[in-house]
Amino acid sequence: MMNGHDIKTSLNEIAEASGTVIRKYFRQPLALDGKDAPSPIVTIADREAEHAMRAVIESRHPDHKIIGEEFGSSGSGDTCWVLDPIDGTIAFACGKPIFCTLVGFFDGEVPIAGMIDQPITGERWISVGGTTTLNDQPCKTSAITELRSARLGTTDPGLFSDPIQGWFSAIEQAARITSYGGDGYAYGLVASGHLDMVIESGLAWHDVAALICIIEGAGGTICDFQGQPHVPGHASYDVIAASSQDLVNSVLSLAQAGLLNRPTDRAILNP
Amino acid sequence: MMNGHDIKTSLNEIAEASGTVIRKYFRQPLALDGKDAPSPIVTIADREAEHAMRAVIESRHPDHKIIGEEFGSSGSGDTCWVLDPIDGTIAFACGKPIFCTLVGFFDGEVPIAGMIDQPITGERWISVGGTTTLNDQPCKTSAITELRSARLGTTDPGLFSDPIQGWFSAIEQAARITSYGGDGYAYGLVASGHLDMVIESGLAWHDVAALICIIEGAGGTICDFQGQPHVPGHASYDVIAASSQDLVNSVLSLAQAGLLNRPTDRAILNP
Repeated sequence: MMNGHDIKTSLNEIAEASGTVIRKYFRQPLALDGKDAPSPIVTIADREAEHAMRAVIESRHPDHKIIGEEFGSSGSGDTCWVLDPIDGTIAFACGKPIFCTLVGFFDGEVPIAGMIDQPITGERWISVGGTTTLNDQPCKTSAITELRSARLGTTDPGLFSDPIQGWFSAIEQAARITSYGGDGYAYGLVASGHLDMVIESGLAWHDVAALICIIEGAGGTICDFQGQPHVPGHASYDVIAASSQDLVNSVLSLAQAGLLNRPTDRAILNP
Repeated sequence: MMNGHDIKTSLNEIAEASGTVIRKYFRQPLALDGKDAPSPIVTIADREAEHAMRAVIESRHPDHKIIGEEFGSSGSGDTCWVLDPIDGTIAFACGKPIFCTLVGFFDGEVPIAGMIDQPITGERWISVGGTTTLNDQPCKTSAITELRSARLGTTDPGLFSDPIQGWFSAIEQAARITSYGGDGYAYGLVASGHLDMVIESGLAWHDVAALICIIEGAGGTICDFQGQPHVPGHASYDVIAASSQDLVNSVLSLAQAGLLNRPTDRAILNP
């Protein structure tokens, strides 16, 4: 396995490659083809950025596996890079500089490193060797441990379906404030202590892979709605990322109170 | 009345004053006192920024009236500055650089100028003399005229109550994409053609006053849910800001289809 310095060098090089592409397309006129067609400029930027990211990895680490949002899986073996060139395509398409590029680095199921890069504001969170930094300065989750004091984030409250919707509404009611929008960038804000918790549902592996080290390396906790860690290979991921285990416990206890009672959530109800 | 150049000079000086305060407090640790207490740092930043803005106006224009979010009304006469030092306090409190400072300038009920300033990203929309600029470059709303192609923005979908909620849900279903969060900053994105429409409810005059010139000076339309212009003196404001009158008409026609049938909306149903 590579050492931390080499991983960080590769992550920085990957971010420079994706950022160069993304800055070129951000806020350029969109050719919109109606409701169901993808926005071509977002698709073009997404694909061209992943292409540039893959080129860096293939050049530096030709023996590593790559899983990307746009071009799927290539290569084989346990050492794997997981890429999401533009996480937050709606934010990107609406000109908001809070989308991000996500990269996770794994040894089999073990997360080794992660990166959240925002190429417009110039913010880059990197976690390697158990420490998360924002632009090379160590960052730490907030000291908030009580839900009533927590700043909660989620990208789109409409993405939850019952009974998760009811559970999430109860959390929103109990939390201090809720901020909508944010995508992967919101998890960087958790790592830096500006948000205390993000809860989302229905994410893909390339949305989640980068976040594990970022949150844990800043002293936070990240898990699914059963309190379990995220591992590769699932079709869909539920995520709680919080400043502390106490905060996670407090939202899981709301579920134990009966608000979250679908059969697959039995692990929470009868842990 | 002042000429456009003088108004612009004052707006820039006001933004420098508020931005200096706001940058000092952004992302500093919050002292959180539980769910219902204001976040002191946001309150401190809000008040100190308005104080700095008022000092500029009182020095340059001692005979003008000022209405501010934090310190209410001072002075008298028809020439009036309307100030919102931090619009998007939740975004500010969560470390997202998409809150903004809003300034509207009025001759009685007639909007003369407006400004949206984002002091972290360095984006400043100013509208005076019928032209809106972003950092001194003229900006224009998008060419999107059909709802099915529109990028819709709203800060918090939970702020709508029935029957507005049903109407907004129908608009969301019909629109291309919806982006949450954004506050006053989203109206700058409409002026620059990155969002096609923003719909919000329950705003205060200091939230709306700056936006009128910004949207109209970029070629867009801004009105209430009856299609009427916004004037001072109401307790609460509903806002549709769109790239074009056609887009406004298409959402008002959804209301005419019976989705928005509270008595006060008779103006739409029977115009």
